[in-house]
This record gives sequence, structure tokens and C-alpha cells, in this order.
Amino acid sequence: MTSSRKPGLPQAKLRVMMPGGDWIGPGKADLLEGIEATGSISAAGKRMRMSYKRAWGLVETLNRMFSEPLVSASRGGAGHGGAELTATGREVLALYRQMQHRTENALSQEIAALSRLTDIPAEK
Amino acid sequence: MTSSRKPGLPQAKLRVMMPGGDWIGPGKADLLEGIEATGSISAAGKRMRMSYKRAWGLVETLNRMFSEPLVSASRGGAGHGGAELTATGREVLALYRQMQHRTENALSQEIAALSRLTDIPAEK
Repeated sequence: MTSSRKPGLPQAKLRVMMPGGDWIGPGKADLLEGIEATGSISAAGKRMRMSYKRAWGLVETLNRMFSEPLVSASRGGAGHGGAELTATGREVLALYRQMQHRTENALSQEIAALSRLTDIPAEK
Repeated sequence: MTSSRKPGLPQAKLRVMMPGGDWIGPGKADLLEGIEATGSISAAGKRMRMSYKRAWGLVETLNRMFSEPLVSASRGGAGHGGAELTATGREVLALYRQMQHRTENALSQEIAALSRLTDIPAEK
């Protein structure tokens, strides 16, 4: 996980809905990042406590969302083959991270206001 | 629905995770708005094709997320009673809408970049 979670504060998560009906959110972004880090869909899924089957399913979804696939993988044998992000995959991941960052910066006032609304009022 | 959906463009949706583990996203915001507009949890749910039971469940979640309830309701008889937003409910809804608006404004460049990545390349 790469979220900059501040304990106790509300946190804004971004889901980008694509015109075709699929979306990319924190989970798929973390999976892409894991594939980049580990070179393996299996290992990336495992870091997120996700089954191999589920991780592959998400990669298949990611690979149909844009005009180019985001992940290039060889599905192979016991070792499950290797995988890496394509140029488009790296670009989409970077764009998503930038969006997440911009969102956090743009919303700090509202986050603080929402946080105040969770305070237990002092007794009189 | 009140989203300013542009057909064909990716769209950023916001989910605000609260420290207690609950969240508010487009669905709960639309439900709050529907309650404000109709004065009824049942009618607000119906506008979203949601069962009365599900709408009540979401209201119960919303009412435990902040230090004050967001919806004040009288659960009553065949007409299902009336409901309205509390001052805190109106404030949370306004904050969420402002966050959604700021997010859309802050991310227009990245949205355009993601959209370009869905274009089918011209044949050579």
C-alpha cells in the first residue's frame, strides 16, 4: 500500500470511471505498482492478499480499458511466468498517482471540516 | 443523479473514507440529496431504484459516521413517515459536493490525458 494515511483524518479515495464502464481505483493502482515492483502478477497479488485468479482478472480488466494493454505478461507453468508494465501502463499509473496527489492537496480544507464534524462535542 | 457526466470522457468519483471505517461516496451523497428534495427516505431510495430497506440501512450508516446524525426521520406506518436533513447533514452534503467539484476542476488535465490513451490509433 502506498497511501499516505493520516490516522484519524478522513481520506479521499479516487475512482476514475472510464467511458466503457470499467474503472481504476486504489486497488488496481496498487496492483499495477506491485507488478512494476515484483515483475510478477502472482507476487503483486500476494502482497495485497489477493488470489492469483483475482489478480489475473483485474489485469484482464486493466488490459481492455485503454487502447493498449497496461500489463505485458507471459502466463507460464508453476512459476506463473513474468509480467511488466507497458509504456501505457506506466503512464496510466503515473497519471493516477498524480490525480490522487492533486486530490489530497485540493481537498485539505474540506477534509478538516469533515473531521471537525466527527468530534464529540465537549460536555457543558 | 446530479453528476455532470460528459459522455466519452473518464470521470473522477470521490469516496471519503472516515476514520471509523465507513465512507461517503456518490451513492450516499445522492441519497442525502434525494431526502432533502423529497422529505422521505422511501421516495429518495425509489428515485435511485433502491429498496426501502437498503435506503434505511444507508441512512443508519450515515447517522453513525459523524458526531451528530445527518438525517432526522420518523419511522412510521404505511407512509413510512417523513425525513429531513439535519444541519450537520446539510453541511456534510455541501462539503461532499464541493469536494466533487474541486476534484473535477483539479484533474481536468489528467482526465484529458487518460482519455487520449483510450483512442484507437489511426491505421497506418
